[in-house]
Amino acid sequence: MQIIKREQCKQKPNADAPLGFGHYFTDYMFTMKYTANEGWHDAKIQPNEPLRFDMATSIFHYAQGIFEGMKAFRQPDGSVGVFRPDENWARMNNSARRMCIPEFPVSVVEEGLEELLKLERDWIPHGAGTALYIRPTIVATRVMLGVHASTEYLFFIILSPVGSYYAHGLEPTKLLVEDYYTRATLGGTGEAKCLGNYAASMKAAEEAEAKGFDQVLWLDAQEKRYVEEVGSMNIFFVIDGEVVTPALVGSILPGITRKSCLHLLRERGYKTSERRISIEEVIKAACDGRLTEAFGTGTAAVISPVGLIRYKGVDYEIGGGKMGTVTKLLYDTVTGIQNGVIADEYGWMKRIS
Amino acid sequence: MQIIKREQCKQKPNADAPLGFGHYFTDYMFTMKYTANEGWHDAKIQPNEPLRFDMATSIFHYAQGIFEGMKAFRQPDGSVGVFRPDENWARMNNSARRMCIPEFPVSVVEEGLEELLKLERDWIPHGAGTALYIRPTIVATRVMLGVHASTEYLFFIILSPVGSYYAHGLEPTKLLVEDYYTRATLGGTGEAKCLGNYAASMKAAEEAEAKGFDQVLWLDAQEKRYVEEVGSMNIFFVIDGEVVTPALVGSILPGITRKSCLHLLRERGYKTSERRISIEEVIKAACDGRLTEAFGTGTAAVISPVGLIRYKGVDYEIGGGKMGTVTKLLYDTVTGIQNGVIADEYGWMKRIS
Repeated sequence: MQIIKREQCKQKPNADAPLGFGHYFTDYMFTMKYTANEGWHDAKIQPNEPLRFDMATSIFHYAQGIFEGMKAFRQPDGSVGVFRPDENWARMNNSARRMCIPEFPVSVVEEGLEELLKLERDWIPHGAGTALYIRPTIVATRVMLGVHASTEYLFFIILSPVGSYYAHGLEPTKLLVEDYYTRATLGGTGEAKCLGNYAASMKAAEEAEAKGFDQVLWLDAQEKRYVEEVGSMNIFFVIDGEVVTPALVGSILPGITRKSCLHLLRERGYKTSERRISIEEVIKAACDGRLTEAFGTGTAAVISPVGLIRYKGVDYEIGGGKMGTVTKLLYDTVTGIQNGVIADEYGWMKRIS
Repeated sequence: MQIIKREQCKQKPNADAPLGFGHYFTDYMFTMKYTANEGWHDAKIQPNEPLRFDMATSIFHYAQGIFEGMKAFRQPDGSVGVFRPDENWARMNNSARRMCIPEFPVSVVEEGLEELLKLERDWIPHGAGTALYIRPTIVATRVMLGVHASTEYLFFIILSPVGSYYAHGLEPTKLLVEDYYTRATLGGTGEAKCLGNYAASMKAAEEAEAKGFDQVLWLDAQEKRYVEEVGSMNIFFVIDGEVVTPALVGSILPGITRKSCLHLLRERGYKTSERRISIEEVIKAACDGRLTEAFGTGTAAVISPVGLIRYKGVDYEIGGGKMGTVTKLLYDTVTGIQNGVIADEYGWMKRIS
């Protein structure tokens, strides 16, 4: 793999400063191009510097693009571990198919990421709860204004040292149940990690934020009745001791942390269920004291306890505003495996030597 | 308004060559920036050349952006006329509100477009059915990966000399009724001209194209029953002499050509109706011989006759595959007003002196 070196490297963020999420970027990036004639080609590592784009480039007009999110962690033996990258590459190619983007060769981007991480390993932060966030992205680059799938694309991976996704860290989040706006619908793009899903969610998020909420809890588009996801997280409820998460009906992102949590829970003998769950059922369980925990899962947010849900103007507190035992078990196990302090029984961590 | 001149201008496309849609771009563009501190500022005309973007720029990840489409036409007296730009600016600010983008000052972009057109008037093509397509766009430019409305934006206008939107010109189009994929839903972004709507439509369009269709006819997301629009066009049906188009229920783009056609038809005494119309009603009318015409309307496609609709595997021919009288009246009137050969009774054309 070609590596184009930069003359001067950036100043790394101060070890004591809070990193936040997605504010700092490393010195290098991986890039690869696609054209109809050559297919995916020209894979290389180059300085992470601004690139030139014609203003008629497709991505600025029709948003044909997809992305992924992964994290790399420092391991006790000094090596670097990435959490379940194979799952992300597979999901990214699923997203590609849905968005008419040509599938990419996984082996090439795997190698690209490995080379990139070797070069940037000093950027992996040391603090508890920190990681090096990995953002692979594909954007349509044809210069043409007809509404049509592009014939040219750019694949790139940038890296960002991150701390907690939420400003308040592991404090339980407050969710506003959204019963006007919709995120996704059956036959839509909800299960693809495409760019437009995120822009579409901003208005509801902005209105929720203005009311003091961290995120919205989306309902299905058809009936505004069934719980879907949080946008940046999948959602789980612990009701009568059973751990319930909405089934992947087609409008929900198939989260990799979600899948990992279900696996961990089943291995540990918890009763789990992936099924349609209505907001009425959640609220009733909250009122009856049977909803003991709720939490969100996602690469950025990891496992995030939910302390309060507002639905139709009424607030329902969950778990006394504290992190529950199932949430804590999952948080400790997932972050333990990620940081190499709990044995990786399932082969989830990919080591970069 | 500051104008930064370029040293060398581009070669204009050959007068005889077919322009197609969105393949050629003029020498200059209008740009304006937004920051939280300064608001919209730095409006200027500059060479239309690629700009540099950090790869962590919000538009590459979350597609927070909107656009518009207008056309400028050569007038018989040598001046330049733009069709209903006020309507586009108003709609663009509506889209901005839906997508959490700060509203822009219309007077500034109006002036910007005027200056740009004065500079680029020689790019307006001469041929019948041609125009100078105007593409105003806003993209989020903050360099940050948290999913959140951006605090920085770029507004730009690029110009493209265009011919017919469809390769086959005014030949009636064939539409495939889409009953699996959805374009938009109530509470979604269907009535905003946001980037993500177009990426979301590509898969259905690609599958339809592979079957020999020009476009898909979208149905509502809830029941897959009511006709919505074509994606690049609004849709009209002439049934029992009445001209029917789907009502703007929230998931349909409020087209300016659509609005203009309704106005023209009402002025001329046609019975028109904006209402929910089911695909069954359309099909039944087609079978009974009561559906005499169908056509699409849009800035790019102007008035485009529909000659065939396929629904659940059955083809329904409309109007014997020819352009009907209502379609022709509207096409002749709209293009006549645009080209200055029919009196502009409604003040739709904005003249650039």
